[in-house]
Amino acid sequence: MSVSGAETPSRSADSFDFARAGTLVLQARDRIRPFVHTTPVLSSSTLDRLVGGSVFLKCENFQRTGSFKFRGACNAVASLSETERHLGVVTHSSGNYAQALALAAQLHHAPAYVVMPSNSSQIKKQATVGYGAKITYCEPTHAARHETAERIRMETGATFLHPFDDSRVFTGQGTACLELLDEVESLDLILAPVGGGGLLSGTLLAAKHHSAGTKVIGCEPEGADDAFQSLQAGHRILDFTPHTIADGLRTPLGEITFPIIQGHVDDLVLVSEADILHAMRFVWERMKIVIEPSSAVAIAPLLNGSVRATGKRVGIIVSGGNLDLTALFDLLDAQLV
Amino acid sequence: MSVSGAETPSRSADSFDFARAGTLVLQARDRIRPFVHTTPVLSSSTLDRLVGGSVFLKCENFQRTGSFKFRGACNAVASLSETERHLGVVTHSSGNYAQALALAAQLHHAPAYVVMPSNSSQIKKQATVGYGAKITYCEPTHAARHETAERIRMETGATFLHPFDDSRVFTGQGTACLELLDEVESLDLILAPVGGGGLLSGTLLAAKHHSAGTKVIGCEPEGADDAFQSLQAGHRILDFTPHTIADGLRTPLGEITFPIIQGHVDDLVLVSEADILHAMRFVWERMKIVIEPSSAVAIAPLLNGSVRATGKRVGIIVSGGNLDLTALFDLLDAQLV
Repeated sequence: MSVSGAETPSRSADSFDFARAGTLVLQARDRIRPFVHTTPVLSSSTLDRLVGGSVFLKCENFQRTGSFKFRGACNAVASLSETERHLGVVTHSSGNYAQALALAAQLHHAPAYVVMPSNSSQIKKQATVGYGAKITYCEPTHAARHETAERIRMETGATFLHPFDDSRVFTGQGTACLELLDEVESLDLILAPVGGGGLLSGTLLAAKHHSAGTKVIGCEPEGADDAFQSLQAGHRILDFTPHTIADGLRTPLGEITFPIIQGHVDDLVLVSEADILHAMRFVWERMKIVIEPSSAVAIAPLLNGSVRATGKRVGIIVSGGNLDLTALFDLLDAQLV
Repeated sequence: MSVSGAETPSRSADSFDFARAGTLVLQARDRIRPFVHTTPVLSSSTLDRLVGGSVFLKCENFQRTGSFKFRGACNAVASLSETERHLGVVTHSSGNYAQALALAAQLHHAPAYVVMPSNSSQIKKQATVGYGAKITYCEPTHAARHETAERIRMETGATFLHPFDDSRVFTGQGTACLELLDEVESLDLILAPVGGGGLLSGTLLAAKHHSAGTKVIGCEPEGADDAFQSLQAGHRILDFTPHTIADGLRTPLGEITFPIIQGHVDDLVLVSEADILHAMRFVWERMKIVIEPSSAVAIAPLLNGSVRATGKRVGIIVSGGNLDLTALFDLLDAQLV
């Protein structure tokens, strides 16, 4: 996955010094505090009983725009100079990051240019436009997305902000873990989903610098196991076709996020599609909150026993609650008498 | 709807003196405090913008057993003498009250006998058994339910606790409103759904005694408009066939709850099935919480404009979050690759 804008310092792999980045997440937290929600940490006695431990869900489904993506987008936009902000920001996204960057830019009075594949869902287009972004549609290919974003960057002078492979973005994502560590003491484990690796990198930054005894486990769908394969191979696997309901996790790891994960993650577990749905249903039914499939990926390993939590204190980063409910409500609608 | 056990003092219509009942909800709150969750009050800037006011959702979907019913059941069981508790409690229910009474009894070390129609959903049977209740199945008719419950009452000496038409039950339900009034000042309006009228009676008790300036509006499905018809007629309408997705609201008003509502409710509004689904979808999608159709009935009047909230502070009693997600997840399951 080659990404335009890779020449900027914050996106160069060897420029990111994990050992010296301990204060970055703290700085990000201060920077975005006026804009983000401090999301609740929820627990469930049923879940605790099932796993034999204490489980704490950091609920980024209650974050603005419905996912953790807003944290990173907000930190990146707030990090720009006044001149840069005036020229705006540009990205390509078909998902949660489009809305997140649109709102972050709006709150900072910066123009936002979002490149979306023409086949993006109506609800995501509307939400992104609703936050004041200018959408440019392109063919639904990686090449078309990058070329279109690069063209807009050249034309407008806007700063390209990658959805995850940018230290300004992933240090922002790490603030969710930091809040969790503030609220819940002595966590033995933290589980987070892995897609492009931004959330996991941010979580590793926060946990390894601010809670040394806490292990961090990445959770990935079997149907998009590129992070698992990449760790095995020792280099990024970019050529794969994802087959998973967890639409936020279909992306390959980034140039910068890969070495962070390679160097610091304690374990990486895979979960089946059936286990993802089972975990999602458990949370909807028992905890009464709407989480997206990508979030369920980090809960499934506790329910299927692949991560043993007996007697442990476990934090989960619940990534978001955005999913298209059209099919579900069409079904209910058809049942009306 | 004639109900066995109507001879006990707390279930006699003329024994309930609304004007003198101001302290009952306060007493109920103290009585059940060790057992219930103080549920969160949530708001949504999108909802506020849509209605032009400030809306506060009292989220009983996060209550134990997933609905407000636990409050009333808990207050009723806690009100019994030690001898009565030893003999146990009996009721008939196919829904939320079965689980609520089962857990309330378990927490008070009282046997619970629950009569359920043989066609009750598997998930509700399991949950009720899970809380230690003894289930007796009967034909799915009103007569069979009452007769079976009465037989068990005679055989065991257990106390019959009606799902709503019992002051010990509905004063318990009023504690949700009391908590809302404690947390949110100066509410202009409170909206609550109406089925048998227990939640609305309890809400009226709490609001009229503890927040005199707050109007209370009952919300009912068009497809089960017996409360609306009953208020028009001046007497209870018992003979109707409900057609609504809001399964908690298919019941006629009780002997005791009817005069309370007749005497004190400020208004009663009807909502269509389409508006119920629309409101439910709005809350799932935008607020990321799972609410049941009966809860959406009290939110729909704000979204469709039949209750004007411009510039007002509005409380909503969100009754619960229990609904069968089997069909929805079967749909997702079928989409797995």
